[in-house]
Amino acid sequence: MRIGVVGLGLIGGSMAIDLRKRGFASYIIGVDTDKLHAQTALKLGLVDEIASLEDAVVISDLIILAVPANVTIRLLPGILDKVDKQVVTDACSIKANISERIKYHSKRANYVAAHPMAGTEYSGPWAAVSGLFDSKAVILCDCEDSSDASLAVVRRMYEFLNMRTIFMSAYNHDEHAAYVSHISHISSFALALTVLDKEKNEKNIFDLASGGFDSTVRLAKSSAEMWTPIFEHNATNVVTVLDTYIHQLNQFKEAIQKNDQKQMSEMINKANRIKKVLST
Amino acid sequence: MRIGVVGLGLIGGSMAIDLRKRGFASYIIGVDTDKLHAQTALKLGLVDEIASLEDAVVISDLIILAVPANVTIRLLPGILDKVDKQVVTDACSIKANISERIKYHSKRANYVAAHPMAGTEYSGPWAAVSGLFDSKAVILCDCEDSSDASLAVVRRMYEFLNMRTIFMSAYNHDEHAAYVSHISHISSFALALTVLDKEKNEKNIFDLASGGFDSTVRLAKSSAEMWTPIFEHNATNVVTVLDTYIHQLNQFKEAIQKNDQKQMSEMINKANRIKKVLST
Repeated sequence: MRIGVVGLGLIGGSMAIDLRKRGFASYIIGVDTDKLHAQTALKLGLVDEIASLEDAVVISDLIILAVPANVTIRLLPGILDKVDKQVVTDACSIKANISERIKYHSKRANYVAAHPMAGTEYSGPWAAVSGLFDSKAVILCDCEDSSDASLAVVRRMYEFLNMRTIFMSAYNHDEHAAYVSHISHISSFALALTVLDKEKNEKNIFDLASGGFDSTVRLAKSSAEMWTPIFEHNATNVVTVLDTYIHQLNQFKEAIQKNDQKQMSEMINKANRIKKVLST
Repeated sequence: MRIGVVGLGLIGGSMAIDLRKRGFASYIIGVDTDKLHAQTALKLGLVDEIASLEDAVVISDLIILAVPANVTIRLLPGILDKVDKQVVTDACSIKANISERIKYHSKRANYVAAHPMAGTEYSGPWAAVSGLFDSKAVILCDCEDSSDASLAVVRRMYEFLNMRTIFMSAYNHDEHAAYVSHISHISSFALALTVLDKEKNEKNIFDLASGGFDSTVRLAKSSAEMWTPIFEHNATNVVTVLDTYIHQLNQFKEAIQKNDQKQMSEMINKANRIKKVLST
């Protein structure tokens, strides 16, 4: 199968590596407006050739959009305008606004809305790695709007990537993603800002950055290019979750201020229940 | 050297493993009011014998308190009452209130205030591992109040544990610990509570728990027994940091509500500067 990968960053690059290695892709056409990304992807052997988006759409059997949410929304209608039998899918962390945008497109059935829930805090083709998606979940949304043939191609692709498939409406996806992914990023960004703000006057504060800080703030390395559009396109859900999160923090603050140890312990014990849902 | 380890959990147990393996400890006496912890530590070979606190103080050259903050504060004066030449140290994540408590004790010089900045979210003797402290930082506080001989023993012990030593006042320690450790834990606890609250109605939400959630919420597995006393004894600093953190979250919320993409991107770019202080 000839695959066009649009966006040669962490996600697109990592897909390219394993889809080729595992025999799903016979030929990979890379598209990226960032010349450095494109040339690096070619040099690293992630793709067989670099082409324009127009050319890639023509010669591919499957087109994977692995670009930020705003770029996905901008490009998808034009790509669907040009497809014949080609299947188109994306990898976006928001789904409802994309769905809305192409809901009535004549080639809607060629598109399969997907969100492979995997990643690292790194970006660019040099961050691409084999095995990134293994054993993680991919969410396929609004599948009733995709043709059986298109859906079969995308499901098969995710089998090659070793992902568990979950079906959900785009609306439900966005709500859940706000809870299990988007809020984690805001939490980390805000934590980084809190500590960096303090650092202005206290140069040695980071000598102490072990003991949990590293893992909590890891996601704060994630790029604005990717995350600003996600927050933009999932604003309502993200704000709802942020409200709950800030409320929980205020509850903690109040318990600490009052030295209400019973309340603190109860909150921590309740939070400990998260153990049951974490793998390690 | 004969070492008495009071508290046979993650920290005490992990110290025992490496201090024996690396030749610093010739004999280890374990003390724990939790019989299961005590018997497990003996069974796992972390300690050579289990003794009462009184007996352990008499027969040890060095006594390490590796118990929660409130227990440390309660036990330390009584231990100092009983020592002659023995050196006493602790491993607490808060230091100022401990310092205050024994500031005028006649045996103050026998005590060295220490905070080895290492840990995992697990607890108990079964969580003890070799190498836990390697390459991390240990903070020694108010060292001018310790005798040269006591300080030398404790510094030598942390050399055997492969830790970098940082010197600081207890007051400064507590402020810094609030920024780089205590707030991370509250952030994680609150995140866990936020998502668990949602889960009541949405049973499948955790199928999606990849993509960053795991690492951000990892610390929410930490125990109330350890953390409630830390928040109690570092309340002022923790509340100050919480205020800044909640302020940053509100700034994010406002930017998202207004769809102010410039502001969102600026905050994320600024948060990205955390890269420079994280090792990986």
